Amino acid sequence: MSQSSPINHAWLLASRPDGEPVKENFRLVEQPLPQIKEGEILLRTHYLSLDPYMRGRMDDSKSYAPPAELDQPMVGGTVSQVAESRHPDFKAGDWVLAASGWQSYAVSNGEGITPLGHLPHPSWALGILGMPGFTAWMGLMDIGQPQAGETLVVAAATGPVGATVGQLGKLKGCHVVGVAGGEEKCRYAIEKLGFSACIDHHRDDFAEQLAAACPDGIDIYFENVGGKVFDAVLPLLNTAARVPVCGLVSGYSSRELPPGPDRTPQLMGTILKRRLRVQGFIIFQDYGDRYPEFLEAMTPLVEQEKVLYREHVIEGLENAPQAFFDMLKGKNFGKTVVKVA
Amino acid sequence: MSQSSPINHAWLLASRPDGEPVKENFRLVEQPLPQIKEGEILLRTHYLSLDPYMRGRMDDSKSYAPPAELDQPMVGGTVSQVAESRHPDFKAGDWVLAASGWQSYAVSNGEGITPLGHLPHPSWALGILGMPGFTAWMGLMDIGQPQAGETLVVAAATGPVGATVGQLGKLKGCHVVGVAGGEEKCRYAIEKLGFSACIDHHRDDFAEQLAAACPDGIDIYFENVGGKVFDAVLPLLNTAARVPVCGLVSGYSSRELPPGPDRTPQLMGTILKRRLRVQGFIIFQDYGDRYPEFLEAMTPLVEQEKVLYREHVIEGLENAPQAFFDMLKGKNFGKTVVKVA
Repeated sequence: MSQSSPINHAWLLASRPDGEPVKENFRLVEQPLPQIKEGEILLRTHYLSLDPYMRGRMDDSKSYAPPAELDQPMVGGTVSQVAESRHPDFKAGDWVLAASGWQSYAVSNGEGITPLGHLPHPSWALGILGMPGFTAWMGLMDIGQPQAGETLVVAAATGPVGATVGQLGKLKGCHVVGVAGGEEKCRYAIEKLGFSACIDHHRDDFAEQLAAACPDGIDIYFENVGGKVFDAVLPLLNTAARVPVCGLVSGYSSRELPPGPDRTPQLMGTILKRRLRVQGFIIFQDYGDRYPEFLEAMTPLVEQEKVLYREHVIEGLENAPQAFFDMLKGKNFGKTVVKVA
Repeated sequence: MSQSSPINHAWLLASRPDGEPVKENFRLVEQPLPQIKEGEILLRTHYLSLDPYMRGRMDDSKSYAPPAELDQPMVGGTVSQVAESRHPDFKAGDWVLAASGWQSYAVSNGEGITPLGHLPHPSWALGILGMPGFTAWMGLMDIGQPQAGETLVVAAATGPVGATVGQLGKLKGCHVVGVAGGEEKCRYAIEKLGFSACIDHHRDDFAEQLAAACPDGIDIYFENVGGKVFDAVLPLLNTAARVPVCGLVSGYSSRELPPGPDRTPQLMGTILKRRLRVQGFIIFQDYGDRYPEFLEAMTPLVEQEKVLYREHVIEGLENAPQAFFDMLKGKNFGKTVVKVA
């Protein structure tokens, strides 16, 4: 902690959104830094991760994690550095993975804080080597179970989950088809990430284009967006296809269900007739104990550039809300992180 | 083959149903028996199995199996006896499991014909020791993965699948709640089959009754009916619940989707937030190679009456269509078989 800036800047959750989140849902405050007590550490935030799941935390509804609390710093994963320590396991200067939330400093008793050692890119612990990369790995490998020659479709194809899923699928010998918003992202998915095809979901003929890119149907659909992409995918799913479900970002801000008819029986009928496996998962709840296994497998792939990773870095904590809104709308290009310190 | 009855009686599929099947969809014909050729056998049908999946075969839509053909005998599993053989592997008098369909005789080249040996109850090869029992076993054990103390819900609780699922769940230490149509079936499920509770789906307060019978939520829902039972189950599913889907009989004769709103996003959202595994399966396609394992495990359970089995026997092939309609409406009580010979 620098003695010249003894102030914590924090974005509090000011109100819960009704539909799409807006600036008024957040409030920026300045707070004096507390003195840490014996057994505590003061963490300075270097990078804040912005992820789609945060939209769900803003609601007051039952989910896999408790909602973010009103008038408290908005929740979020961070890469932080120990500024001051009265904890035996940490010393000033240590890099750690934390959950400090949307603020420049946080006090911790060390619980849930993971030492990072000396990473060449500390922020990658929020992406390819952290939650999104782990999500991609386990969802694809454990639920998707890719076999060479199978067709794998993934949306948000240049995002940290989608890009990783697709590249891992390529390494497994799959025919990988991405879905992304805009020609630039699609070009990147094909030219840089090596996808066989990538379809722009803004196109009017999106469903036809997707079908044309999957002449043998779809064996794995890695679901992270829902909505019209899922609608286009469903008729193309092959017998015994697998659908790992890690997110449904297109519907996170929906206020009500779409108009009828109710297609639930159609979905259940497809699950039965095509013997689909549709399985939701929340990465650390379902697979927390397999994180070391993931890290051991993924780290060399990243180091050898067999799996590429792209970040979308926003400078300054003050820009976090707008960056969050943009990410929810797909305006980011790569993993969104806010450079705080 | 008795020389005094050289006639085959067969129910042909005369037309495809529009919604609920009706008598006019079938046509009873008498045909002379063909002479069998070298390498063939003549099978005399003793028992014909009537099962919900047959409704799907009457439609001309893409499914896991080709549709039944018009003007051909309606498809179906049978327990038959070899009446005449010119095949080296079979001799007259052998009992076999066959797929002769809705007719009193059939000619076969031996493909797909399973010798039954000397069973005390040959017809059970169509039920507890055949497709329905195997469906119950694999769906529950492989997808449901029951743990002691978990809550298991199954509908059609006195049918051959549901009754078996529930009794196997009991043996695994589950809290088993059945759903059935009518007080008599519910009483049977509790008193004879040992279910902890069984709710009559005709009751106006069905959903409330089901919730009250599952105070700890539902960990496994074995789906064989769909519709309002699924609607009542969905809000009760616990985190990491499993939903093996082997049938959706309530919707088989629906002509159109129910009115809106479209609850598909709600179902997908529940799959994600509660990390559900929803998996369709078609027993012999998915698990055919594990039939011997099933038979080895199930046979002693049946012999020792740890798993009870109830048949609903209809006398005479001429009554097959009405028995089929009744079964689709749940008017049967136990596994429906037609005694043909």
